[in-house]
Amino acid sequence: MRDVAVIGAGQTKVGEHWGTSLRHLALEAIQAAMADAGVTNGDALYVGNMLSGELEGQEHLGALVADFTGLRGIEAFKIEAACGSGAAAIRMGYIAVAGGLADIVIVVGVEKMTDTLGPDTTAALAMAADADHEAAHGASFVTINALLMRRYMHEYGYDHQDFAPFAVNAHGNAVNNAYAMFRFPVSPGSFERARMISDPINLLDSSPICDGAAAVVLAPADWVGGRPVAPVRIAASAVGTDTVAVHDRRDPLVLEGARLSTRRAYDQAGLGPRDIDLFELHDAFSIMAALSLEAAGFANKGAGLGVALDGEIGLEGRVPVATMGGLKARGHPVGATGVYQVVEIVQQLRGLAGKNQVPDARLGMAQNIGGSGATVITHVLERMVDW
Amino acid sequence: MRDVAVIGAGQTKVGEHWGTSLRHLALEAIQAAMADAGVTNGDALYVGNMLSGELEGQEHLGALVADFTGLRGIEAFKIEAACGSGAAAIRMGYIAVAGGLADIVIVVGVEKMTDTLGPDTTAALAMAADADHEAAHGASFVTINALLMRRYMHEYGYDHQDFAPFAVNAHGNAVNNAYAMFRFPVSPGSFERARMISDPINLLDSSPICDGAAAVVLAPADWVGGRPVAPVRIAASAVGTDTVAVHDRRDPLVLEGARLSTRRAYDQAGLGPRDIDLFELHDAFSIMAALSLEAAGFANKGAGLGVALDGEIGLEGRVPVATMGGLKARGHPVGATGVYQVVEIVQQLRGLAGKNQVPDARLGMAQNIGGSGATVITHVLERMVDW
Repeated sequence: MRDVAVIGAGQTKVGEHWGTSLRHLALEAIQAAMADAGVTNGDALYVGNMLSGELEGQEHLGALVADFTGLRGIEAFKIEAACGSGAAAIRMGYIAVAGGLADIVIVVGVEKMTDTLGPDTTAALAMAADADHEAAHGASFVTINALLMRRYMHEYGYDHQDFAPFAVNAHGNAVNNAYAMFRFPVSPGSFERARMISDPINLLDSSPICDGAAAVVLAPADWVGGRPVAPVRIAASAVGTDTVAVHDRRDPLVLEGARLSTRRAYDQAGLGPRDIDLFELHDAFSIMAALSLEAAGFANKGAGLGVALDGEIGLEGRVPVATMGGLKARGHPVGATGVYQVVEIVQQLRGLAGKNQVPDARLGMAQNIGGSGATVITHVLERMVDW
Repeated sequence: MRDVAVIGAGQTKVGEHWGTSLRHLALEAIQAAMADAGVTNGDALYVGNMLSGELEGQEHLGALVADFTGLRGIEAFKIEAACGSGAAAIRMGYIAVAGGLADIVIVVGVEKMTDTLGPDTTAALAMAADADHEAAHGASFVTINALLMRRYMHEYGYDHQDFAPFAVNAHGNAVNNAYAMFRFPVSPGSFERARMISDPINLLDSSPICDGAAAVVLAPADWVGGRPVAPVRIAASAVGTDTVAVHDRRDPLVLEGARLSTRRAYDQAGLGPRDIDLFELHDAFSIMAALSLEAAGFANKGAGLGVALDGEIGLEGRVPVATMGGLKARGHPVGATGVYQVVEIVQQLRGLAGKNQVPDARLGMAQNIGGSGATVITHVLERMVDW
């Protein structure tokens, strides 16, 4: 097995792109990543996307994006794992390069959720849940997360207000990220006054419906020895799965898929949570951020919220999260999110995160979650040089 | 790179499965393949599927099928490349095993196209075409293929009746395949009298809308040395892509993606078309069968139909095609088809094809096409032992 490096990264601004099509978003991110990597071609293109069929009436994104970006002819597929599709596509690229079946793989995550053909985006997102046993009964993603949040508050004695630090931290970091959707701060007070969505989840517990694309270029690590930009290697790439329906789980407040995925990643890299300098977690809802901190070993069961309340998730904290705004404030174009997370960690490890730079960041972990924890993909990235 | 073998294969009957859900179809095929392989677990599950979101309101098939088949916890994604999704999933499994990142990979192709939530299946299938530049103007898959067929007849001077041998051959072979949808023969006369669908394509030029699942288990070839069933190795696995929109191609009657894909496969295996004992081609429409024979090197441009007219596509012909019924008569549950093709070649190479056995079959080629030739995945399978 070969060591794999991220040799290029690119992204579009996240937002409501009414005048830009899905393929144009993908093009912008891929061109930026390929220019960054200094490559003009590749051996394969893997596209992470969840909803192009439902929302744009377009499947077959692999060949479509390959052709539109000037890569016609190369191997190209779409990889789908609900909101985990972006990191799933990176995982596939990692496998191809690590195993020696490809030298240069381009991975793009792209999603366009606003300007759609007609179906309701919330209903489309519910396709990440169990269609027969959850969605058929009217459950949507926000209602499922609301049940988890209510249960968490009940079990561990928290108030809704206790979740405020996640939104405050994410929005504070997004202010300095030119690619983020919501570049304004929020206060604990505005968090508590925000409009209710699905009790107890309010607007500031929730990531937005939006459009965006992010891309990375992967290559063998030894390929990049003489490159000018500080390269980053993938120290671990791992997946864990769980039941899709939350009611099938032994304990709904334990993300067993995330525990599996993280443990496999730690084992691969020979690391533990103490070694991680920043953690781009999947804060689609604030309850998911709390549960992820626990599943990834940064807190005991029921203590994930305490990490945020103790001020440990900030840029200089014990475990910085959402350093560029996270799903909450950078935005969550679902199939693109997993690639955004990796692009942002690459920025951090290259020392190019500006005002949001985590001091001396050497190891960053990205965790992308599909559904309510059914598919969890974890990547640990490591800085290869000093800067 | 390691040699990869197909150590197990399974399938459901293709048909209209009104009483069986998508996940149950996948379960049946996976259980059969795992029992055949003698394995009870795996390192990863890749699911080939095109339309579960649009037709069943269910994305996230990787984790869903993993859990439902008793594989909860393992790495699991859905791979999509329109009607080429099944072989695309096999390609991903091949990459993982060949590169040493997984030892046992389970691949299932599954599609349920009949009992749907509401959307028209023909409209959903058009999502394999270019949504902005083909489908938006009313093109469906059958109308695009009708244009190609009309052009072929015009360019090379054929009549519609000349396409009859493809349907006659496929239906004749399906009679003996217990898993086929249409187990009845058709005559050249009934071919010409069949109901018109989209001039010049009639009902017997077309593969059916149907449900089904097929699965294979992949492992390193040296793993299977002492196994009782004649093992089969993957001698080549290759992909080629082309424009999604047919009007963007230099010559609409040349499947450039198929030429690329086949040439890459031949190069990998060190073979040419003369070495292939049977060719499971993508006869979604009879015109696709003719164009595939040309792109894969079995005939010159414009002469693909001649191969069929000369009686060379039968079980004892120069290039046997659709040996178990093909897409036309076994059926074409789109995301499952690429896996059915490989399962059938495994039957042939094991000498278990019954009345449809190709004499002394040693090398079989499967070619799965997404869209009108935009994604083409080719696998060459080789018998590893004498029997």
